[in-house]
Amino acid sequence: MRVEGEDMRSLWWDNGTLVFIDQRQLPFQLRFFEATDVDEVAEAIKKMVVRGAPAIGCAACYGMVLGDGGTGAARKLRRTRPTAHDLFYAIDYMLEHDGELEAAHAYVEDVIERCHRIGEHGAALIEKGSRILTHCNAGALATVDWGTALAPMRVARDCDIFVWVDETRPRCQGLLTAWELEQEGIEHAYIVDNAAGHYMQHGEIDMVIVGADCVAANYDVANKIGTYEKAVLAHENDVPFYVAAPRSTFDEDIDSGADIEIEERDPVELSKMHDYTPRQICNPAFDVTPARYVTAFITEDGVVRP
Amino acid sequence: MRVEGEDMRSLWWDNGTLVFIDQRQLPFQLRFFEATDVDEVAEAIKKMVVRGAPAIGCAACYGMVLGDGGTGAARKLRRTRPTAHDLFYAIDYMLEHDGELEAAHAYVEDVIERCHRIGEHGAALIEKGSRILTHCNAGALATVDWGTALAPMRVARDCDIFVWVDETRPRCQGLLTAWELEQEGIEHAYIVDNAAGHYMQHGEIDMVIVGADCVAANYDVANKIGTYEKAVLAHENDVPFYVAAPRSTFDEDIDSGADIEIEERDPVELSKMHDYTPRQICNPAFDVTPARYVTAFITEDGVVRP
Repeated sequence: MRVEGEDMRSLWWDNGTLVFIDQRQLPFQLRFFEATDVDEVAEAIKKMVVRGAPAIGCAACYGMVLGDGGTGAARKLRRTRPTAHDLFYAIDYMLEHDGELEAAHAYVEDVIERCHRIGEHGAALIEKGSRILTHCNAGALATVDWGTALAPMRVARDCDIFVWVDETRPRCQGLLTAWELEQEGIEHAYIVDNAAGHYMQHGEIDMVIVGADCVAANYDVANKIGTYEKAVLAHENDVPFYVAAPRSTFDEDIDSGADIEIEERDPVELSKMHDYTPRQICNPAFDVTPARYVTAFITEDGVVRP
Repeated sequence: MRVEGEDMRSLWWDNGTLVFIDQRQLPFQLRFFEATDVDEVAEAIKKMVVRGAPAIGCAACYGMVLGDGGTGAARKLRRTRPTAHDLFYAIDYMLEHDGELEAAHAYVEDVIERCHRIGEHGAALIEKGSRILTHCNAGALATVDWGTALAPMRVARDCDIFVWVDETRPRCQGLLTAWELEQEGIEHAYIVDNAAGHYMQHGEIDMVIVGADCVAANYDVANKIGTYEKAVLAHENDVPFYVAAPRSTFDEDIDSGADIEIEERDPVELSKMHDYTPRQICNPAFDVTPARYVTAFITEDGVVRP
C-alpha cells in the first residue's frame, strides 16, 4: 500500500525488530510501534496496535520468532485475542517450523500473495467508472498489504472507480478505509451507515464489496455488524453483493451462520463520544448474512458463486 | 411527558415568558431557555433550543404573541428554519388571529390533542410484551407533548413493552429518545443503526414505529436518513412497519417521494467527533421510504393503510 507516497506494509521485520503502523493512532497520525520480544508483540495484538485477523496472524509469526518458537511464547500469544482464528493457525504453523524466521517470512508473503490474487480476480468484476460501496476496513492495514475487499479496488484503481465508505459504527473503521483510499489517491466519499440504502435506491452504487470474518460451509457470512443490512438493501435494489475472502476464512466445520457465536462488545464503544449513557446498550460486533444475499465470493482461486 | 418525575412539556407560556426545555443540552443536562420577545424566540428556533416541526410551530405561535402579531414578527420568525412546514403554517394562522394569546394556546392544545389521539390509535396495535424499534426522535420533545412515534408507546407503557432505540447517526437523536423513555420508565436498549437488521433477523423486533417529515399524495414517506433501510429490513423479515404522523404531515401537493427535495447537511456532523476529516463527506439528512414498505399510517383519525 501507499503511505504518504511511499510503499509500505502494515507491519514488517527490520533486523530483529517487528515494526507496526500503530493502528490505534490512525487516521489521526502516522506513528510506529516497535516490538523486540514476544511480550511486546503480544501487547501490540492485545491493545490493537495491529488489527484484522490476517495481520494478527502475521504478527504472531514474528512473535514466535522473537520467542524462539517455544510453547511459552505460544501461550503468551494465544492469550491476546481469543476470537482471531488466524492467530491460532499461525502459532501452530510456527510451532511446526521451530520458530524459524524464514517460515515467518514465507507465511507473510503467502498472505500478501493471496490478497493480491483476490485483487486480480475481483478487479475483473469491476467495470470502468464503477461506484463501489464497502463496509468496515478490509484493507491493507488488516492484511499486511493489498487487503481483501480493498484489493480489487487497488488493482482497478485506474478504471475511474469511486468508493462509497460506510462509517461503520460503533468503531468507525470506515475512517481507516477512507485514509487508505486517500493514500492511494482513489476517489471516495464517507457516509453514515444510514445513507447507504438511500444511495442504492437512487442508483448511485453499482456494486458492494465487503470482507468476512468467517464463511460457514453453507456460505453464510459473518462480518462486521451492519453487513447484513447492506446485503439485504443490495438484494432489494438489484446491486451485486460480493464478499472478498481468502480460503482460510472458509470454515467447513461450521455448518451455517446459526452456529457462529456473535461477540457482544463493551457498551462504551457507543457511549464514549457523549456525556450521557443510556441505561442499556446492546453492542453486537458481527452479524450473519445468509448465503442467498451473496452474489459471489472473491477468493485467491477465483470467483465462486454460492 | 415525565421529566425527573414531574409532568412537563417541551415548551410553555409563563406569564409573558416562553419557557423551553433547552434541547441543545439534552440528554446531558436539563436546562431551560426563556424568551421574552420575538427575537429571542427566533433565536431559540434557529439555534435548535427547540426542534421537531410541530414544536417549532408552537414556539412560533408564542413568538407572534410576543411580537404583537405583526408582519415584522412574522418576517423574523420565517427566516429561522426554512424547511419546517409547520413554522409557516403556524405564522399564517397567528396573522389571521392578530397574534392573540388565546389563539396560540388553542394551536398548541390542538397539536397535543392530535398527538394524544395518535397514541390511542397506535396503542391499539401494540400487543402485550411487544418489542418495538424506533428511529430518530419523534417524541414529546419534538411535539410539545406525547410525540408521534413515541405517543403509542406512552399510552401502552403498562403493556410490558420494550423499545429498541436506533442511535440515528449522524446527530444521534436516539439519545433524546432514550432519555425520554428513561424519564417515563419504559424499558429500552440503545443500539447502533447497523444492529437493527440483526435483531429483526433474530426475531427480536415485533414492530417498527417511526415518525415522518412529509407524506406525499401516493403515501411515500420522507423521514430521517436511515428510515428507508429499516423499512426494507422490516419488509424482508415480515416485521410490521408503521409511520405515526398527524394529518398536517400529509401533503397532497406532493405527488410522490421523487418530488421531495432531500436536504444535504454540513459534513461536520460526521467528522466532529474525530481529529480526521475524510476529503469528501456526503450527508443527506432525509430519505424516502416508498409506500409499499409501510404497513399502515397511525394518524389522529385512526389507522390508515396505504
